Amino acid sequence: MGAIRPLEVPSGTDELAAFGITPCEGGVCAAEGIRAAGVCANLRGDPNRRDLALVAADNSCVCAGVFTQNRFCAAPVQVSRERAARGVARAVVLNSGNANASTGAPGVEVAKRVAAIVAAELGCDEEEVLLGSTGVIGKPLELDGFVSGVPMAARALAHSVEAAHDAARAVMTTDTMPKESSYAFEVAGSNDGARATVHVGGFVKGSGMIQPNMATMLCVLTTDADVTAQAAQAALRAATSKTFNKVTVDSDTSTNDTCILLATGAAGNARIDQDSADFAAFCAAIKAVCEDLARMIAADGEGATKLVTVDVLGAANEQDAETVARSIANSPLVKTAIFGHDANWGRVAAAAGKCGVDFDQYDVDIDLLGVPVLRKGLPLPMDEEDMLRRFEGPEVPIVISLGVGNATARVWTCDLSHEYIVINGDYRT
Amino acid sequence: MGAIRPLEVPSGTDELAAFGITPCEGGVCAAEGIRAAGVCANLRGDPNRRDLALVAADNSCVCAGVFTQNRFCAAPVQVSRERAARGVARAVVLNSGNANASTGAPGVEVAKRVAAIVAAELGCDEEEVLLGSTGVIGKPLELDGFVSGVPMAARALAHSVEAAHDAARAVMTTDTMPKESSYAFEVAGSNDGARATVHVGGFVKGSGMIQPNMATMLCVLTTDADVTAQAAQAALRAATSKTFNKVTVDSDTSTNDTCILLATGAAGNARIDQDSADFAAFCAAIKAVCEDLARMIAADGEGATKLVTVDVLGAANEQDAETVARSIANSPLVKTAIFGHDANWGRVAAAAGKCGVDFDQYDVDIDLLGVPVLRKGLPLPMDEEDMLRRFEGPEVPIVISLGVGNATARVWTCDLSHEYIVINGDYRT
Repeated sequence: MGAIRPLEVPSGTDELAAFGITPCEGGVCAAEGIRAAGVCANLRGDPNRRDLALVAADNSCVCAGVFTQNRFCAAPVQVSRERAARGVARAVVLNSGNANASTGAPGVEVAKRVAAIVAAELGCDEEEVLLGSTGVIGKPLELDGFVSGVPMAARALAHSVEAAHDAARAVMTTDTMPKESSYAFEVAGSNDGARATVHVGGFVKGSGMIQPNMATMLCVLTTDADVTAQAAQAALRAATSKTFNKVTVDSDTSTNDTCILLATGAAGNARIDQDSADFAAFCAAIKAVCEDLARMIAADGEGATKLVTVDVLGAANEQDAETVARSIANSPLVKTAIFGHDANWGRVAAAAGKCGVDFDQYDVDIDLLGVPVLRKGLPLPMDEEDMLRRFEGPEVPIVISLGVGNATARVWTCDLSHEYIVINGDYRT
Repeated sequence: MGAIRPLEVPSGTDELAAFGITPCEGGVCAAEGIRAAGVCANLRGDPNRRDLALVAADNSCVCAGVFTQNRFCAAPVQVSRERAARGVARAVVLNSGNANASTGAPGVEVAKRVAAIVAAELGCDEEEVLLGSTGVIGKPLELDGFVSGVPMAARALAHSVEAAHDAARAVMTTDTMPKESSYAFEVAGSNDGARATVHVGGFVKGSGMIQPNMATMLCVLTTDADVTAQAAQAALRAATSKTFNKVTVDSDTSTNDTCILLATGAAGNARIDQDSADFAAFCAAIKAVCEDLARMIAADGEGATKLVTVDVLGAANEQDAETVARSIANSPLVKTAIFGHDANWGRVAAAAGKCGVDFDQYDVDIDLLGVPVLRKGLPLPMDEEDMLRRFEGPEVPIVISLGVGNATARVWTCDLSHEYIVINGDYRT
């Protein structure tokens, strides 16, 4: 029998190259017409920790949003979901330390009061202010810190790399690093024959309670593209479904997942709608930012030491592929084995088999860390020393082919370590 | 507002008292006509560790079985499922150290060879020998240890408390204690007017890779009831669905889940079929043993420090109730909070809300450790000192009422501790 070749994962078309989409500086401030700030408002008992972020467009602009499907959705989600549906916004205000979730009507009232303070500072309608909160669930959110903090944040607003960074840091909880990404590309300008440069960027926070179902905890994206609200919403929904919604740290969907896109139109491009030639490039750029941020979330999952990518091939349909991928990605046994550098691929097989998706075990192939370990349901000899060396890298690829059909899915996760238990055993205290 | 009373969990009818079912000694040997053994066969490289169990009826008898639904079901499952379907068996042979899963056709062949050796020792048809294996997945099972081990086990067979205990110990892997239970009760005798005493007992192993879907890893039950195969299967299936199938340690359904019931008929009762007056008592006794063993599995979950009981009330239907209960029971955030003695009930709310079951958060009540913490979606003041005291006990009750309908579900689990990571980070090494 000849050498067994690793499974080939379809790389997809290289969309970014095709559309000339390249990374750029600036994060959430990459887009023209956007200012940001992250300040220490003493919302969480530490006067030296940034805990309040504000992202504002220079003028009212197009917005889109996707939110958690958790039934216990938080007050800021309830308020923002309704407001984002109008397709127009001016700013997003975010806080860490308190999720304002399971706080009832009083929590909704506090959220609206915070938005009103922001609106007064910016001179806009309070309906144009969206919100995001992250932190402890079930604790009343005090308005006090916002009364002084929001004016401070409004004064600090700036269009700069540093301001974007400050905002990204202000929403961190158990995150160990701020998570930012931005890209630029050219589209048709608003004058015949001219070209316009469009920027897309943003930041996200997320580390635990991560199995987003719509979006992930507190993501703000901005663009200077001139784009219709419908096209913005469509691009955002498409991107989140393929990026944030494919990340799982601990299978726990948050009460506060929020992803908001502000589009200022300052790039001076020909307005993009869903029928525009440039809509595909716009979608690809939004997806590129989301995918960068999604991978950062998985890599920075609470206690994580590895970024794990699970590819499922050969499924009957996409739903089956995703069910199997998520079953593997959420298996505590798979995740602890990876933490322990144990090439225990039998747990990958068991996780694939347990989720109710139909296949024949004797049609299944598995690669772990790029090494074929199972072919047609039969184990292959494995060089344990080689596997240990491969575990030294920062990423762990798992590929499984079910041998049923042609559908595929990719899900990102991380390993499960002691540190996850430490972080979550006394989160409130 | 008056004192808020804890939610009342329906206790169910006291079936055991109604049927006069009382605990007795003997475990898997409580039933007349059953002998057991657990010996050191050196199957796992430790000559002083019991690793081979044998449970044999004195004669061919009625059997029933339920097995994992994992698509990667192990070789012993494939063989036993087919044989148990015939309703007749003589013995069950079990080993720890190697699951004989993902081992292909050679694995099935080894399982059949092991059964043949048992059959030769007992003088029965090899089709009457069922098997169970637990341990590493994907490693070929060597026949050698069984060639000498099975005759040793056959010689050691005895009808005693100690023999039952030895068998229960031989199937342990990461289990920290053997898990046995047995009950006795009276039913109609085979002669008019006479009464007969029936025994039901068994053992189970299970600690990790526990979210049984049909049964749980390696459970052998025995009874001396004279019962039809159909009635035995119906009673077993009903019991497992309410007991083993409601336990989750880590949401990972094993490749090897196996629960087998042998019924010798030695009690001399009037044969029980599904229409017998005594069928309900028989079912209740089987369920009592299964529930005892299921709770032991949850309490002995890998690294567990607490037995957690999740009761969901007020659901629209049983499926919804179970989905919510399982979502809470499998939430790593809920489980780590319990390990950390953190009364972070917001995570219970978030877990209930994430699973797609429809309810209004403002209809929901939650009790944690017997203390009302949420009523109609609003948090109640909580005495943290009192909660810390309540966390000292061995059990943590969580009750959530969805306020939709009248359906309920109960699921058992354990907390998630450092020890789980230690145990599973290097399981194979």
